[in-house]
Amino acid sequence: MAPGMEIRRLDSRDAEFPAQLDALLDRAPETSIEVTRVVDEIVADIRVRGDRALLELSNRFDRRSLQSASEFEISKTAWVQAWDGLPADLRAALAAAAERIRAYAEHQKLAPFAYTDALGNTLGQEVRSLERVGIYVPGGKAAYPSSVLMNAIPAKVAGVDDIVMVVPAPGGELNPVVLAAAHLAGVDRLFTIGGAQAVAALAFGTATIPAVDKIVGPGNAYVAAAKRAVFGRVGIDSIAGPSEIVVISDRGSDPRWIAMDLFSQAEHGEDSESILISPDADFLDRVAAAMAERVTTLPREAIVRASIAGRGALILVRDLDEACAVSNRIAPEHLELAVDAPRALLPKIRHAGAIFLGRHTPEAFGDYCAGPNHVLPTSRAARFSNPLGVYEFQKRSSLIDCSVDGARTLARIAGRIADAEGLQAHAQSARDRG
Amino acid sequence: MAPGMEIRRLDSRDAEFPAQLDALLDRAPETSIEVTRVVDEIVADIRVRGDRALLELSNRFDRRSLQSASEFEISKTAWVQAWDGLPADLRAALAAAAERIRAYAEHQKLAPFAYTDALGNTLGQEVRSLERVGIYVPGGKAAYPSSVLMNAIPAKVAGVDDIVMVVPAPGGELNPVVLAAAHLAGVDRLFTIGGAQAVAALAFGTATIPAVDKIVGPGNAYVAAAKRAVFGRVGIDSIAGPSEIVVISDRGSDPRWIAMDLFSQAEHGEDSESILISPDADFLDRVAAAMAERVTTLPREAIVRASIAGRGALILVRDLDEACAVSNRIAPEHLELAVDAPRALLPKIRHAGAIFLGRHTPEAFGDYCAGPNHVLPTSRAARFSNPLGVYEFQKRSSLIDCSVDGARTLARIAGRIADAEGLQAHAQSARDRG
Repeated sequence: MAPGMEIRRLDSRDAEFPAQLDALLDRAPETSIEVTRVVDEIVADIRVRGDRALLELSNRFDRRSLQSASEFEISKTAWVQAWDGLPADLRAALAAAAERIRAYAEHQKLAPFAYTDALGNTLGQEVRSLERVGIYVPGGKAAYPSSVLMNAIPAKVAGVDDIVMVVPAPGGELNPVVLAAAHLAGVDRLFTIGGAQAVAALAFGTATIPAVDKIVGPGNAYVAAAKRAVFGRVGIDSIAGPSEIVVISDRGSDPRWIAMDLFSQAEHGEDSESILISPDADFLDRVAAAMAERVTTLPREAIVRASIAGRGALILVRDLDEACAVSNRIAPEHLELAVDAPRALLPKIRHAGAIFLGRHTPEAFGDYCAGPNHVLPTSRAARFSNPLGVYEFQKRSSLIDCSVDGARTLARIAGRIADAEGLQAHAQSARDRG
Repeated sequence: MAPGMEIRRLDSRDAEFPAQLDALLDRAPETSIEVTRVVDEIVADIRVRGDRALLELSNRFDRRSLQSASEFEISKTAWVQAWDGLPADLRAALAAAAERIRAYAEHQKLAPFAYTDALGNTLGQEVRSLERVGIYVPGGKAAYPSSVLMNAIPAKVAGVDDIVMVVPAPGGELNPVVLAAAHLAGVDRLFTIGGAQAVAALAFGTATIPAVDKIVGPGNAYVAAAKRAVFGRVGIDSIAGPSEIVVISDRGSDPRWIAMDLFSQAEHGEDSESILISPDADFLDRVAAAMAERVTTLPREAIVRASIAGRGALILVRDLDEACAVSNRIAPEHLELAVDAPRALLPKIRHAGAIFLGRHTPEAFGDYCAGPNHVLPTSRAARFSNPLGVYEFQKRSSLIDCSVDGARTLARIAGRIADAEGLQAHAQSARDRG
């Protein structure tokens, strides 16, 4: 007989429920002072000593013994070899995924606009791509090819000139599927560096590593702290936290499917968060039983058990409306609506990174090949931020083009407000055109 | 006779020019370690002690003597009184500016999309507004009503539920025009707090100050450091630096106008940057002469002189193409194209926050009433970031809705890649739908 499954049970009718939920969600994205101190030193070191520091830090942290910074770069020939060396069915799967990611990304392109006002002035917005971006791929043997596709393809679709990928190679080991994915995604250059030193090298540039305009991609606490430190000098995407899933399900779903969907988050790590919300207590029991049964089939059983025990929850709610309200409070990275009429719930969902509708749309499709990006806001950041997308690799410039007549009216308005703000050069500059 | 005008002269033909330009642009947006230390303490204090800390810090830094945190809030009645008390022509100018800002913002709204693939799966993107945002307005008597309009109106157009504005009131003093602008722009609540403590209060919430989802608006180094520290817990817009203008002009512009346009940046502060680029050496001389003459007319003459001497430049280039290349290297916040055919130069401009076309479009129009936002990327951030806009107050959620048949194909692709990544729960969750 399978052992049981340890997972907390919450009930929205419980007076303590709001506090219990808040406790479950209390995942501080702030960087610890100790990590900040270490990272500030690394960033300053790379900035001052460049390649020399990069070589020393990489040899130490990644257990490497390189003599020259030029050895960090992996040539495109090696990527092509890696691609050619993959099993044909894996190549086909990756190519199909890449094509779907590209098709979705095409829909995200920002469009310019322009209009002419009643005074004859033209106002608008231009769109340009970023010139050079850095993609951080977490490293070593566990590096994920899907992350390469998800980060590089939107940049490519945006029209970025140079995509520079960094991935640490601890002990010199690198997943060949990651190299193959770099080839497939259209990366331009690839360096085997990682950690805060890689982020600093991308932000400031060294003799070997080109300085980029923006750095995207997830990483550990040191990578996150380094991104925070260089923000402003370069753009960054977001501070990535552990992965999360919320499933809202009625009694109509197969409990075995829902159990495995929860596990697909839990297997990422012990700090992943997997939450099922249902108005049906019996269904929650059946999912718990299915979890106990199916967990034993997983190679990562120990991680899954620890994650579910530490960060999992089965939440009983009054109805599906309340399920949506609880989910909005969580603002999850991934939300499955495994119900009869998911479209009816959609207007009630305010905060979620990606929404999976219906019983045949597991979150795992979104991780690999549905099309939308798998880089999504975590730790409640879905309240204010976006999935990674083409728009992260484009930027807007405002456009103002005044007619001689139109300028006269604007000169009067601007002059009056500038007077009120005590900025006389502003006022005069405006009135020169009046 | 007017004294001369101290301003550096650069020539792109000079071998040293690239290094000279880089030196001029070397404005580190990084936060100093000392400021970080102070700010980290303030943030931690607000987080732990809430209103009590906010009261102590505000009384100390803003020279106030409040007894209760409830005194921070200014009632809407006071805003209406402030509005009613303004001169009629200023009310009209502010209302006209607000209407133009609103009209432009309406064009920026993000649109959802959806499409169905050949397998019958529907992919899309939903758009939602943020729930609650905080607007930081730099403070005291010099607080700018235009900043209130520029920050609050896009949030209002986006559909944000609650707009919480903070503005410090040093010594209890507050510009009534700022209160009036809050009324006009549709702000919901207003608190007279500022500095790092205000940012921390908005990020974590106190008994008095509601926690927000995103904080926007410029501030001093402490405000910037606090925004950096709370980034991730809440969204932030960008780290604002000193204001900048680049003017590209041929010999056809009135040198007096161009001189005043440069001054309109310089009067913001001694660290503002005002650069004129022209292929015509004689025109540069004539602008220098006009600057010497017109600077004496300005109440802020001393600030303007210091700014122009420290951060100003007249740059001689070979032609307008090179002018654009130099401007792209600078990636300025504001760019004026004061030339005969500005539209011909536009495709050559890669990086600029706002572009002002033609001789009748001074940058000052953009500060107040042209329509586009005056909150723009500074310190070369135009390489990777956007003007403040409606899109900063909206966010996207990905949508995935699979058909039974469509799920079968995705199950095969996702399963194969998950196998390669060693994530068996992902593979099984996908194949459950296969």
